[in-house]
Parts: sequence; C-alpha cells; structure tokens
Amino acid sequence: MLPEDLQIISVDDHVIEHPRVWLDRMPAKFQDQAPRIERADDGNDWWIYEGQKAGNFALNAVAGKDPKDFGMDPRSYDDMLTGCYDIAERIRDMDREGVWAQLCFPNMGGFAGRVFWQSKDRELGQECVRAYNDWILDEWCAHDPDRQIPLVMLPFWDVEASVAELQRTLEKGARSATFLEAPHRLGLPSFHSDHWDPLFAVAQEAEFPLSVHFGSGGGELTMAPDANYTVSIAMMGMNSMAAMIDLLLSPVFHKFPGLKFALSEGGIGWMPYALERADYTWTRHRWYNDVNKEVPPSELFKDHIYGCFISDHAGIEMRHRIGVDNIMFESDYPHSDSNWPHTRKVVEEMMTGVPENEVRKILEDNARILYNFPRNPERSPVA
Amino acid sequence: MLPEDLQIISVDDHVIEHPRVWLDRMPAKFQDQAPRIERADDGNDWWIYEGQKAGNFALNAVAGKDPKDFGMDPRSYDDMLTGCYDIAERIRDMDREGVWAQLCFPNMGGFAGRVFWQSKDRELGQECVRAYNDWILDEWCAHDPDRQIPLVMLPFWDVEASVAELQRTLEKGARSATFLEAPHRLGLPSFHSDHWDPLFAVAQEAEFPLSVHFGSGGGELTMAPDANYTVSIAMMGMNSMAAMIDLLLSPVFHKFPGLKFALSEGGIGWMPYALERADYTWTRHRWYNDVNKEVPPSELFKDHIYGCFISDHAGIEMRHRIGVDNIMFESDYPHSDSNWPHTRKVVEEMMTGVPENEVRKILEDNARILYNFPRNPERSPVA
Repeated sequence: MLPEDLQIISVDDHVIEHPRVWLDRMPAKFQDQAPRIERADDGNDWWIYEGQKAGNFALNAVAGKDPKDFGMDPRSYDDMLTGCYDIAERIRDMDREGVWAQLCFPNMGGFAGRVFWQSKDRELGQECVRAYNDWILDEWCAHDPDRQIPLVMLPFWDVEASVAELQRTLEKGARSATFLEAPHRLGLPSFHSDHWDPLFAVAQEAEFPLSVHFGSGGGELTMAPDANYTVSIAMMGMNSMAAMIDLLLSPVFHKFPGLKFALSEGGIGWMPYALERADYTWTRHRWYNDVNKEVPPSELFKDHIYGCFISDHAGIEMRHRIGVDNIMFESDYPHSDSNWPHTRKVVEEMMTGVPENEVRKILEDNARILYNFPRNPERSPVA
Repeated sequence: MLPEDLQIISVDDHVIEHPRVWLDRMPAKFQDQAPRIERADDGNDWWIYEGQKAGNFALNAVAGKDPKDFGMDPRSYDDMLTGCYDIAERIRDMDREGVWAQLCFPNMGGFAGRVFWQSKDRELGQECVRAYNDWILDEWCAHDPDRQIPLVMLPFWDVEASVAELQRTLEKGARSATFLEAPHRLGLPSFHSDHWDPLFAVAQEAEFPLSVHFGSGGGELTMAPDANYTVSIAMMGMNSMAAMIDLLLSPVFHKFPGLKFALSEGGIGWMPYALERADYTWTRHRWYNDVNKEVPPSELFKDHIYGCFISDHAGIEMRHRIGVDNIMFESDYPHSDSNWPHTRKVVEEMMTGVPENEVRKILEDNARILYNFPRNPERSPVA
C-alpha cells in the first residue's frame, strides 16, 4: 500500500492545446499565420500553421482507449477526453488516476517547440512560443497552482531570446523549460560547444531544471524506413540514453555545477548499464580526449541528471545503482504509454517491496525538490 | 574462485591481419589491387586497398598498453603485441589471460567486411572476402582448432554470393559469420524485408549463428561532430540495443524459428530494460502495426538472441531477467576495452556470488552450445 498522505507527482504529461490558445494571444500582425484548428472533410481536426497543415493529435490523445483502437489516424477534439485540453476536467482525470500534481509538455509545437523553430518567419515562431507560455502559465497552471508544475518553451534557435523568455516566464512562476536532448541533430551547436552557456548560466542561477523529453532533439534514431512504428516507440528511450551519456562526457556540468537535467519518458532501467559503461570508457579513454579528467560520469550523474519511469521493473530493482534521489514517476496522460485511469494501481504494483522512505522520494519528494514545488500544507493531503 | 576445470570462452576478440593475408591468396588479376601494407615516412603501417589508404590499427591493437598511451594515432606492427597477428603468440597471450578459446572478428575490412562492400570493383571485394575466410580457416583457426571458433565474413551486398560463401566455408568448418546489425543504415534492405531470407534459411538449416558486432551496421549513432571520442565508445552498445529491438519486432524470427543472433561487445546490462520496454510497446501498439500479434518480444529473445559482456556488474546482477542461457563472456583482445592480461581476474571478480552452474554456462557452456564448439576431452582442461 502507498502511504495515505502521499501526493503522487507525475513529471511527464501532455496538454492538447485548445483551438484558441494562439488565436487569443498572438499580436494582430500575426493573426493570419497563428496556429488554428480547421476541421477537414473527414471530420478530423488539423492544426494549420503559416497556412499549412502542421499536425494532429493521433496517438497523443488516446488516454482511456482500448489499445486495440490505437492508431496513427488523425483525430478530432470530439474523439478524446475533455481533460486533454480542459484544465478543470484534467484535474478531475488526475483525481481518477490518483495523481496529485503533474508537469505537462506541449503538443502542437512538439516537445521542445520544434515546429516553431521550423517557421518560415522566425519572429512569428517566437511569438507562438510566447503565446504558448502565457497560456500554460496564466490559464492552465493558474487554475490550481498546487497541481500543475509550470513548464515553458524557449525560442531555442536564438540563445539571447531564450534567456529573455526564460527570465520573463520565471517572473510569472515557470519551474522548468523544455529543451533539446541532442541539439546537434537539428544542426545546432552541441553540448560540447559554448553556445548554450548564457542560457545554462541563467537556469543555474535560478535553480531552474531543464526537462528534456525523449524525441525532442530532432526525433528518432535511424530506423529502417520499413520498420513498423512499434520499433520506433520501443527504441525512443535510447534518445534519453544518448543524451545522458553525451551530457556526462561534455563540459556542461563542469561549467555549471548547479545545472540539472530531467530526462522525460526515457525510462530508468538502462541507467545502471549506461553509467557503468560511461565510467569504463572514461577510465580508459579520457587521457587523449577533451574530457574532464577528474570526475567520473557516474559521480557527475548524482548531482545533475534525473530519470523517470512509467513502468520499469528492472529500473526499480536496480534503483540503488541509479540512486533513489534521482528517480521520479510519470503518468504520460493522455499519450499511448499512459495507464490512465489505472495509474495508481500500476504504481502501487511497481512499488511492491520498496521501503516507504524510498517510495516517498520516488513518487513525490524528488520532484518537489527538483522543480522547487513545495507542498501546500493548507490542502488536503490527497485528492 | 572459478571452477578449476573451466575453459573460459571469449566470443568477441579481434585479429590484426598480417601483411600477406591477401597477397598470398588473391587471384593474379587482382594482385595489384589486393590489400597490402605500406610503411609511411612517419613509421606507421597503412593498409593500401585499390591503390588508396584503407586504414591502420590505432586503438584496435593496444592490448597490454597503459590507457595513458591510448590514442587515435596510427601504429605499426612493431608497436603491438605479436599475438595481434601471429596465431602461435595469440595462443600464448590467451594462456596469459586465462582464456581457453576465442572467436575473432576481422580488422582491416571492418567488423562485417564493410570496406570490401565499398570496393570500386565488387568482384575484387568478393575475392578479398574469400581470401580472408581462407586465411582465418586454413591458417589462423587450423593452428589449434580447439582454441579458435572460426568466424567468417560474407559478401553481404550480394545475397546469392553470401549463401554460396556460407556454404563453401561451412564445409571448411566455419561456425559463425559476422553480419550487419542494421543493414538499412548502409542503404540495404532492412530486417523487415524478405531480402535476407535465402541467407537466413541456410544459416538456420546449418544451425549457424550470425554474430553481429556493435558498429557493424554502418557505424555509430548520430554523434555531435565536436563530441569527444569517449562519447562514441560509451554509446557504442546502443547499436546492439537498437539491433535487438529491431530484430525482435521484425518478422525474422517468426520466419526462421531456428535462427540465432549473437550481439557482440554490446554489453548486457541494458537488456532487462530493452526487453521490458519492447514488451510494453508491443502490448499496446501491435494491433495497428505489421508485427506478430502472438509472441511477446521477450519470449522471442530466449530462443534467438545472445549477449556478451566484458565488465557489466548491472547485467550480471540482473542475469535472471535476461536469462543465464543467453549470456556469454568476451575479452576483446587486443582492443581498448580488453583487460588483458588481467582478464581472468576481472571475470572472477564479476562472478562473485554467482552460483557455479551459472558461472559454467556464462563463461563456457553457452558459447559451446551456440557455436556448436564442443570440448575436446583429450585436451587438458585448462591452459
């Protein structure tokens, strides 16, 4: 049994933006190009951006459906739970699954805002980021600030603008920003460059963790073109694995000893292997490589990297090789990995045999500390 | 302590071909283009193929060196252990590290023969593969057949020619062939196609496992161009992870229920996570995907995939999640991952707490069964 007063925090869930998110918040000059929903003749709703189709919901809004009804087909707002896009209903859906608070990633613009980066008009893209942030902060998270951890987007293609947006949203209560797991895959400077230093400096100063969702760095590993989509989803966590190894062998954490990265949806069961392997290669190859010579990657990990899981028996069994302070939980509502509304049952089963002090860290306290998101003692302990 | 009569088998080691491997075995018409060694002005030995520089030994021949002397600089035959290229010395080096038998991958042509695939003249490439196989079978492995598991190369760019070469070398005693872990990354048909079926059919019929070395499928994941080389080496096992997931969600093992793949140098610590994740996504996404609906990936794994480790504490701790019948050991002599001459000490430490019947499987019996390489009862049990 989970402790009765536990407030489960999920660090990776998703919004489906409602149709007026951008229309209500974009400057007049960009009204025509702002993301808007159009219902096609087949009854499906499509995002139109800069005059072109820019995505649908498909697998990203399937919570509550039987997996036999999953598919890549486009969907409409009528064909999803209201909690996907309505915050009052979302809170009720969280009550149903037994999750107290959650951190939501964006949908329409991609996990880290890649769609806006690809804008023909970058100024427009930047305004879309700002409008999204105003919506997530002022409408979605403001509805019940004890139950939503505010995660914002950055115009990552412009470091100065990213710093400015981070500072602007920090003042409005942002607790994390979504960021790229492998910027070099988008053709941007890598973690081995100095390019991101101004942004990392501000994040470190504000004790503001960056949340890196799998697939946010330019998509997937090189799949066979004829591989079925199950392969892609099964491999997706490898993007987090690559990001972790890359970061731990980069100069980032040596330059910014207070900076923290959360690897979202990547799982944790691979971490013991990856840390051991990183240490093994670091031990042998550091001498002729441009890599820090003093601190092994696994030591660096403890202060800088946080993983999370949905269902990961291997990871929980190996939790002491990872470190129970570095593990968090996620529900992934309303994506296809989610167990909604049976989330609490799945979590409870995962925590079988785990001592209560560790359960508290993994399911609540680690997220509260990392995201600087304290309990409100005025609220009833559970939903 | 390891059992006294144990004959440790390493399933991933490497030859450095001596300078006359091809010169002595190529048809007259190809003598001019055959791979040959030339010593450059700086004292380093370079392979020249089709008139151009085609590689050196660098990190691939460093066994016995202090890691502080590792580097990407080219080397000469004078700057490596004689056992790299001389089979009599190799056996003595195996005695020094306490390894009874080993399976060696090629060096000059790449793990799976990619250099020959890239030949301007494909007929020449095919002759180079044949010459390598004749050398590894007739000279290297024939020296002491109880102590070398013969692994051959295939002209993989031509399935019919591969079948013919497999049949030819089978008759000469080959026990495995090196193959691609991700043929699609070379622009060849993937495991999801029917392209490889004739080859897989012959391999299945002959109970002939395919050995897939990490990095054999077209190299590495997308690294940052300015990432240091430690990142690349630390991530290399992810290629094996991708290959395993891809294979288990492909039609290959449903078409060939007797076919087996050994994932070489990929490690094993990530397997419990990858199997759990593959099952999780298969459970949810199989309905709308072209993937077998009956057998979960983790069930398929048991009969088809074998992993190996050099040093992998997480993997050994999780061995029952993997299956002790699917785990083998490797020394990696003379590459930079090797612990030569301290191999036996490292293995012994890794096996602390593992019951003797499992130690025997992992360090000897699994390899003997998979590669159909029985003990010779006439030989003294240990070197």
